Amino acid sequence: MIQTPYLLFLGDAPDALAAKVAQGIKDWRPDASVGQFRMEGCNADMGLKDMTLAEAKAAGAKTLVIGVANRGGVISDAWKTVLVEALEMGFDIASGLHNLLNEERELVAAAQTHGCWLHDVRIPSDAYPIANGKKRTGKRCLAVGTDCSVGKMYTGIAMEREMHARKMKATFRATGQTGILITGSGVPLDAVIADFMAGAVEYITPDNDPDHWDLIEGQGSLFHVSYSGVTMALIHGGQPDALILCHEPTRTHMRGLPDYTPPSLEKLREIALPIAQVANPDCKVAAISVNTQHMSETDALAYLAELEDSMGLPAVDPFRQGAGRLVDALEAI
Amino acid sequence: MIQTPYLLFLGDAPDALAAKVAQGIKDWRPDASVGQFRMEGCNADMGLKDMTLAEAKAAGAKTLVIGVANRGGVISDAWKTVLVEALEMGFDIASGLHNLLNEERELVAAAQTHGCWLHDVRIPSDAYPIANGKKRTGKRCLAVGTDCSVGKMYTGIAMEREMHARKMKATFRATGQTGILITGSGVPLDAVIADFMAGAVEYITPDNDPDHWDLIEGQGSLFHVSYSGVTMALIHGGQPDALILCHEPTRTHMRGLPDYTPPSLEKLREIALPIAQVANPDCKVAAISVNTQHMSETDALAYLAELEDSMGLPAVDPFRQGAGRLVDALEAI
Repeated sequence: MIQTPYLLFLGDAPDALAAKVAQGIKDWRPDASVGQFRMEGCNADMGLKDMTLAEAKAAGAKTLVIGVANRGGVISDAWKTVLVEALEMGFDIASGLHNLLNEERELVAAAQTHGCWLHDVRIPSDAYPIANGKKRTGKRCLAVGTDCSVGKMYTGIAMEREMHARKMKATFRATGQTGILITGSGVPLDAVIADFMAGAVEYITPDNDPDHWDLIEGQGSLFHVSYSGVTMALIHGGQPDALILCHEPTRTHMRGLPDYTPPSLEKLREIALPIAQVANPDCKVAAISVNTQHMSETDALAYLAELEDSMGLPAVDPFRQGAGRLVDALEAI
Repeated sequence: MIQTPYLLFLGDAPDALAAKVAQGIKDWRPDASVGQFRMEGCNADMGLKDMTLAEAKAAGAKTLVIGVANRGGVISDAWKTVLVEALEMGFDIASGLHNLLNEERELVAAAQTHGCWLHDVRIPSDAYPIANGKKRTGKRCLAVGTDCSVGKMYTGIAMEREMHARKMKATFRATGQTGILITGSGVPLDAVIADFMAGAVEYITPDNDPDHWDLIEGQGSLFHVSYSGVTMALIHGGQPDALILCHEPTRTHMRGLPDYTPPSLEKLREIALPIAQVANPDCKVAAISVNTQHMSETDALAYLAELEDSMGLPAVDPFRQGAGRLVDALEAI
């Protein structure tokens, strides 16, 4: 568990896009961060108060979260100076970077000396069991997509927020780096060893109250040949009661696979539901979540209306319309 | 690549079952082993010539293969004495044991001193890429099962042997420990990190002659919730042209999952084929391979005849009947 509140480290981000992890944390957990730390040349701004390490410490920050991608995959000396100073002041550090905090000698030494944690959220933190497939108490919802990066994480977090607003019991279960930094825990499923993937999903979605919903962050797609095994493990380890189908209608090919055309939502339902029913015969497709950011409002609404009609399911863009009807669909199950 | 010929190390195997890896090597590569090495108390016998290390060395053996499970998951001092002596004489050692040769200090030291290899086939030997899904030349056949341990490896190796007898170009591609020890190479897919599973399968089944068949060793089952992600990666990384459906008709529940009933072969076809067609739209189900070892000859033949009729596909037990008709089915594609 990563301790909050955070100080968001934006480093020398060349532009806003480089700081998209920080943006996710800011968007979804606005109360989790006391401020931002920017170095010379930083062109990203979360609209948080700029703070020195000492100011952040005084404001109660416990963890410095690296919210920015590093240039060239190297943790620069300029960054290291700041990070070591943070450890000396008692901050933990959390990072989703490819190159690990725990492989930087100066950081490891400083963390040991000062009794701080270095959280590399790309590395699984626990020894996961092999999945046992036993039916668990409580309910689970999983977002499955026609492709990668179509809004599965956004959908899950937006639903959790809406459910909390309705005083429903719900927990978003992160399965990727950004999700883990946003929520403070989870499993980086793409870094888990094959034999333990489904077991890792069981592990983070244990027995719960009968009226509690886990909202499991989806990964990959059953139709994305590079990552479909991870998606499969999520479906069978998660034993979902409800699937939310996620889609981005303007995409012309699968992400990173120029020769592969994204499937239709009908095709996704046709493949995903029988697979999910292996682990949970009562599983249902509850609703459709569409990322319409590349469509006009008019086109988006027309598209969604048509989908509702052809699929016989609620179809919404939670970013434009909120997640209310997605949660209604869960409540109807 | 593990160097042949082998000396099969049977250690102090309490019974024949404990030496089933050695049995697989003996059955499938009878010419690969110069002899067997047995310690006091060994109750397994491959019918090979008993040899001392010196005799095996003189007979040309290059690798001592541990063909027996160790008791209690510990490499005993008695074993170690033999293994260190083998390294001192210039043998490589190969093992599929859970506890690794490379974690035993005396073995690592002896291997370094004498310039020998310690092959732990449970550990991936290469850095695999992320799958790119690009169409490869040559043909590929994958065995998919209604459950784990229904004869997928046996089917693949039996088909390779039959194809070689017909002078067809064919290579069995091992994806599990025993298969790797039998063939001398492959990828231990269940030990690969999630993101790289499908890429590892692409890596071991590269471009080949148009009339060459890879016979990819199947793993797990799409219906086995503990391992289905591995099966999925095999299907999408392997982009098979042909699927062989594998089944064991007397099983009452999925292996290790008492609450799960094995699916029918119809259901397996229904789920597996559309998934395979994501990576290769021309993929076909070619035939059915049934492990009828727990049925009488009469019952087995009646069952197979009925299956042929109901599924419209050749259905054979390659152990009873040979793999000829399975290969005919590939040739017909």
